[in-house]
Amino acid sequence: MGIDSATLEAMDRYWRAANYLSVGQIYLMENPLLRQPLRAEHVKPRLLGHWGTTPGLNFIYVHLNRIIRERGTDILYVCGPGHGGPGMVANTWLEGTYSEIYPQVSRDAEGMRRLFKQFSFPGGIPSHVAPQTPGSIHEGGELGYALVHAYGAAFDNPDLVVACVVGDGEAETGPLATAWHSNKFLNPRVDGAVLPILHLNGYKIANPTILGRMSDEELRSLFAGYGYEPLFVEGDQPMPMHQVMVGTLDRAFDRIAQIQRAARAGADEPERPRWPMIVLRSPKGWTGPKEVDGLKVEGFWRAHQVPVSNARGDDGHRAILEEWMRSYRPDELFDDRGEPTPDITSLVPSGQKRMGATPYANGGLLKRDLVLPDWRGFALDVHVPGALDAEATRVMGALVREVMQANRETRNFRLMGPDETASNRLDAVFEATDRVWMEEIEPYDVHLAREGRVMEVLSEHMCQGWLEGYLLTGRHGLFSCYEAFIHIVDSMVNQHAKWLQTSEELSWRAPIASLNYLLTSHVWRQDHNGFSHQDPGFADFVANKKADTVRLYFPPDANCLLWVTDHCLRTWNRINVITAGKQKQPQWLSAAEAEQHCREGAGVWEWASTCAAADEPDLVMGCAGDVPTIETLAAVQLLRHAFPDLKIRVVNVVDLMTLQAHTTHPHGFTEAAFDALFTTGKPVIFAYHGYPYLIHRLTYKRNNHDNFHVHGFQEEGTTTTPFDMAVMNGLDRYHLALGAIARLPHLAGRAGPVVAQIEGKLAEHRAYVREYGEDMPEIRNWRWEPKGGASQA
Amino acid sequence: MGIDSATLEAMDRYWRAANYLSVGQIYLMENPLLRQPLRAEHVKPRLLGHWGTTPGLNFIYVHLNRIIRERGTDILYVCGPGHGGPGMVANTWLEGTYSEIYPQVSRDAEGMRRLFKQFSFPGGIPSHVAPQTPGSIHEGGELGYALVHAYGAAFDNPDLVVACVVGDGEAETGPLATAWHSNKFLNPRVDGAVLPILHLNGYKIANPTILGRMSDEELRSLFAGYGYEPLFVEGDQPMPMHQVMVGTLDRAFDRIAQIQRAARAGADEPERPRWPMIVLRSPKGWTGPKEVDGLKVEGFWRAHQVPVSNARGDDGHRAILEEWMRSYRPDELFDDRGEPTPDITSLVPSGQKRMGATPYANGGLLKRDLVLPDWRGFALDVHVPGALDAEATRVMGALVREVMQANRETRNFRLMGPDETASNRLDAVFEATDRVWMEEIEPYDVHLAREGRVMEVLSEHMCQGWLEGYLLTGRHGLFSCYEAFIHIVDSMVNQHAKWLQTSEELSWRAPIASLNYLLTSHVWRQDHNGFSHQDPGFADFVANKKADTVRLYFPPDANCLLWVTDHCLRTWNRINVITAGKQKQPQWLSAAEAEQHCREGAGVWEWASTCAAADEPDLVMGCAGDVPTIETLAAVQLLRHAFPDLKIRVVNVVDLMTLQAHTTHPHGFTEAAFDALFTTGKPVIFAYHGYPYLIHRLTYKRNNHDNFHVHGFQEEGTTTTPFDMAVMNGLDRYHLALGAIARLPHLAGRAGPVVAQIEGKLAEHRAYVREYGEDMPEIRNWRWEPKGGASQA
Repeated sequence: MGIDSATLEAMDRYWRAANYLSVGQIYLMENPLLRQPLRAEHVKPRLLGHWGTTPGLNFIYVHLNRIIRERGTDILYVCGPGHGGPGMVANTWLEGTYSEIYPQVSRDAEGMRRLFKQFSFPGGIPSHVAPQTPGSIHEGGELGYALVHAYGAAFDNPDLVVACVVGDGEAETGPLATAWHSNKFLNPRVDGAVLPILHLNGYKIANPTILGRMSDEELRSLFAGYGYEPLFVEGDQPMPMHQVMVGTLDRAFDRIAQIQRAARAGADEPERPRWPMIVLRSPKGWTGPKEVDGLKVEGFWRAHQVPVSNARGDDGHRAILEEWMRSYRPDELFDDRGEPTPDITSLVPSGQKRMGATPYANGGLLKRDLVLPDWRGFALDVHVPGALDAEATRVMGALVREVMQANRETRNFRLMGPDETASNRLDAVFEATDRVWMEEIEPYDVHLAREGRVMEVLSEHMCQGWLEGYLLTGRHGLFSCYEAFIHIVDSMVNQHAKWLQTSEELSWRAPIASLNYLLTSHVWRQDHNGFSHQDPGFADFVANKKADTVRLYFPPDANCLLWVTDHCLRTWNRINVITAGKQKQPQWLSAAEAEQHCREGAGVWEWASTCAAADEPDLVMGCAGDVPTIETLAAVQLLRHAFPDLKIRVVNVVDLMTLQAHTTHPHGFTEAAFDALFTTGKPVIFAYHGYPYLIHRLTYKRNNHDNFHVHGFQEEGTTTTPFDMAVMNGLDRYHLALGAIARLPHLAGRAGPVVAQIEGKLAEHRAYVREYGEDMPEIRNWRWEPKGGASQA
Repeated sequence: MGIDSATLEAMDRYWRAANYLSVGQIYLMENPLLRQPLRAEHVKPRLLGHWGTTPGLNFIYVHLNRIIRERGTDILYVCGPGHGGPGMVANTWLEGTYSEIYPQVSRDAEGMRRLFKQFSFPGGIPSHVAPQTPGSIHEGGELGYALVHAYGAAFDNPDLVVACVVGDGEAETGPLATAWHSNKFLNPRVDGAVLPILHLNGYKIANPTILGRMSDEELRSLFAGYGYEPLFVEGDQPMPMHQVMVGTLDRAFDRIAQIQRAARAGADEPERPRWPMIVLRSPKGWTGPKEVDGLKVEGFWRAHQVPVSNARGDDGHRAILEEWMRSYRPDELFDDRGEPTPDITSLVPSGQKRMGATPYANGGLLKRDLVLPDWRGFALDVHVPGALDAEATRVMGALVREVMQANRETRNFRLMGPDETASNRLDAVFEATDRVWMEEIEPYDVHLAREGRVMEVLSEHMCQGWLEGYLLTGRHGLFSCYEAFIHIVDSMVNQHAKWLQTSEELSWRAPIASLNYLLTSHVWRQDHNGFSHQDPGFADFVANKKADTVRLYFPPDANCLLWVTDHCLRTWNRINVITAGKQKQPQWLSAAEAEQHCREGAGVWEWASTCAAADEPDLVMGCAGDVPTIETLAAVQLLRHAFPDLKIRVVNVVDLMTLQAHTTHPHGFTEAAFDALFTTGKPVIFAYHGYPYLIHRLTYKRNNHDNFHVHGFQEEGTTTTPFDMAVMNGLDRYHLALGAIARLPHLAGRAGPVVAQIEGKLAEHRAYVREYGEDMPEIRNWRWEPKGGASQA
């Protein structure tokens, strides 16, 4: 499509307006339109922000607006170099969306003054693209995730094109470097498109960038290797650059349309297309000061943050700033009232087509609740605690399969995993869907297809980022991961938690579905692996986030896991971490019991205790986690036989946040409720799945805290038998029983022989596993004996 | 170079021997040489391990041995698919190094029996490549870091070639995807070479791999784009594959030699060469069973772990196993005594040239202590506490510069950072060296050079991985990072800590230099950034690791930072985390005082207290971190004026681990020492740099724990003034003073007006910053007044 020069001129004016507004945000607190000469008191005392990337972001914005107006495309702008926050704010103000959301920042002179002052200002807005920024699903602070977010947004959104600006700094990160391969998972028939725009301005904070210094030939080869068709836009002269960008964007959107038409018209399954991507080389700090104090600024890293420092205190610097801002000729861009001129606003798309107003960027608006089958339909028939064995995650897999099935038409639920869905025993889900795969499919491949709602790639970063993008645009999902390796995405989880925490304070942001984790193949059962796969510390990490946002669940058996899964899939704006094993183990609760227990979050298991729930016990045995629960019950059984008169209360904790004070966490028990479980003075032997410290820090304010003795993971691990792992860390039945006896001085004389017997058992265990390589039969075949049952030898 | 067919035949026998030994490790506990028919009791009850990648690893090993023998090259084998642990163990046993290190696993029939039994067996060795594995610097559990480790090992080791096998599973991870760009930082003149061998066996656990299914054309394009010359070796017929591998390796090593000769002979600075890399396509589980139970195994993901399950209990499966093992014709490979035949051992390089015996893989052997200048020479002249202002990291930068200078000749110290060395104010180091950069250098670039000991790339993964590889091969370094983003490498730190923990138990592994972090641009001073850059939780993460391994330092001023830096650079096998700000702030201690204070780790600051150190105080004000120290002193000053008779003791903590019990951590104070600081019953207002919970969990066993009231980061943050950040989180002087007053009921009647005054100050602060965008002058200009000084208005 051609473009007339008047439109091109108007586009340039729009761009100058956006640049002017960006500079103004960084520098000014008064005199926004420069209708007076610039004086010291107009300039902010603290100059904070990032100019370098901003003119490029603004350039892309006005050109995407043209595409939207001409083609009616829904475009979501994912801004990788989100440090350029002023640019995105400037554009959404220019197009009117900013003032619609924040009426006090009106589209006039007074609004412009507020727009400028609020930026990076106490009580104002952050310097980066953030939840406060209209049109954004992507926080611009930590780098690396723009492209995975963009793909996550595009999946199952066939009418959406996600324009994803990738900075050349960000392009050096690992997560971004692998994210290019996301094109192997995007189906042009049912998904939208991603148009990556690699913005090479050449510099980071104080260095050139790797990709910025690569030749076009190497770049072309690299991106062709990644499977794209790279299109280059390079230069520093505005009008020629506008011309080239128009032609290139037209070519890219034509190509996208052609790929989609072909895939959607044909009867055959589509092959992986070569999607276009754009390489945009433009100067860092483009249109800013060329030099300051004799040093190169435009086109160099000195343009990264604030190119002219101390413009308040230094008259010379202030003169540079004023000259720079006036170079955009603000009088041509804004009328007397401070409103953008009509030729500029005429370039703005209408209504929700504006990128600041697209509902795709406020996904909660588009979110449809999942259709959830009754989880009780998948529950195991548990009549007698411990009589039945099952693999909890396999049972959960059947529920997930039905969730897939029930939401097939709305296409709004996906399961992510780093090649672990089957290993984690969720493979029932493959009865309802396949793994999506756009590369070659061989006849002997299993559950691979062009369409599929399971996404597997050996990159926790991609799984996490895709899911975040998917949730932020209004859909649902579950990420199943080996427990130890979820630490790979600690920092991404951190940023997502921050996004949620901030979003909750913004009334215009509709809630999105929770980020749900199933952590399995956990520390206590690492059969094929060893120490490297043993780390239960993600719970500690998550517990540092704001209480409103995080939940930690340790269902002790399959029915509890079903309830927890169902519950998590109904929640919003949360990070739910479910930890559950995949190995065969005894089942404890019926569906009804599981429901009551999980709803309460923690409770006395009277059937496992040696006294009535109402009795004051001599000892509380607490447990959280599936393996700790088994070991606790085995310890109770051992103690019950050794000391028949000992009153032991068993307390199982599913929802770890119940341990915190109710003033700290919404799920926290009151003092009275906590004391009713754990007493105010009796010893508590607490078997916890992870690092013991977490229980101490959650309970440190509780009355009985000084009597809590927590057993958990002590960083002892290797490839060994399951029970030996517990022994190495003191979480096994024997150490739990020994711990209990040590805290019960009244057993005194009777304890000696029991302790000797237990220590003998431990020695026997150690010798046995080293000889035979598996656990002793009495461990492998251990079963819970109901209180009335036969006594143990 | 040609190769005769006898050698080729012998190489094939060597390979078969390695494969045989690998299968034996996974399956057998008796009858290692199959001199008897295979019976159930010969097979392990639990079959754990990974076969799929192993034959490929073995294939590469024997071929690298030929290169070593023919060329005398020192080769370090970095095994990315370290799941294939049996392969590396098998090869080092074949070459004799295994038995030299572990004499009980001798190179004979009995040794072979032990070799087999110990694998993935209680009390034995882990299933993955691990510290226990001779010749390894790279744990094979968590994937993604093989190539960065390889480059880290090659820097400053000009005579070393690191052969780095990258699995196609691992190649999907982010850290690996960006690690290919490490070639932009390797100088052929002064560094060694890395030969990446991308091993495409096509499958992960249950999926094809992205790179495995890409066409050769796309792969060629991708790796040419990354800057390499890819060489392909593809097939499944052993003898032709041997032939092709010989020719390809010769070509690769010729090319490496040619590049190095050119770079080392020429007078000009070398340009970035196109280093060779190999793409090896071979079947997963190559030479294993083709089918089991009618399902495809060889060349498919079913070969990933144990291709034939339950070979102990299932006669049919055991027959498959026996046939498979006999297919290697063990009688041709091992003599009657179980020793490898001479034609096999003749292929083994000699002595330390053997890859299992290379000292490069036991870097502590090569480690030379750093020459460290006297840190006191860089100390600030602090006569009066608080009288002088300085930027702590800038002072540290001068010390680091001298460390660079003093170790220039030995070339064994590097500084890593994600483009933040200057931002973190360590730029004095550029007076001694430059940033290394092998891409184009422009005339206006600053401190970029072909040779340079500062490594900057916008990837925390690369910084961390390079440094790990560098340390593991016997050198030293420091990683300076924004505090919040160090979480990006949580999982890598985890794995490195595990490596160190395990290494300490192996007498043959010599200690390596500690992994030292400077975390700066920290949570309390995020001027250009905001909430996304605010997270002090790395300390919590690290504190979960074994006490022997981790240290957390919070130097309160520049002289303390100097002492801590010097100390950390002298330690070994540790992870030292130093958190210190870069902003200008008051200095407290002279060099002598800093030395004494830091050596003790924590102590009373009598000069800041309102009573003598020997007095029993009414109140303890504890602090850890630079900003908390300032706010604590300001709070003391405020309280001192308000309540002149109040006895306040100030305790500053530099080494956080002193807070733990001495039975838990080697740096932990005894009960008596702790109580002498914090009393056994007085209120303690503790201002901590990070999440308050960490202080609670470290001190929960202490006598006075219930009186600890910790102020710290509460997840409140944005772009605002420095003091406002403290106020938002209750860590400021006003909240600390209010917290103290609330715990001092005896102040009763006198407290009211003071509280009202403080609350007025807080209100005034909030209004001021929102109006003016900077802190009130009384905050900006606040100075510590020595006790005898003028009284505050």
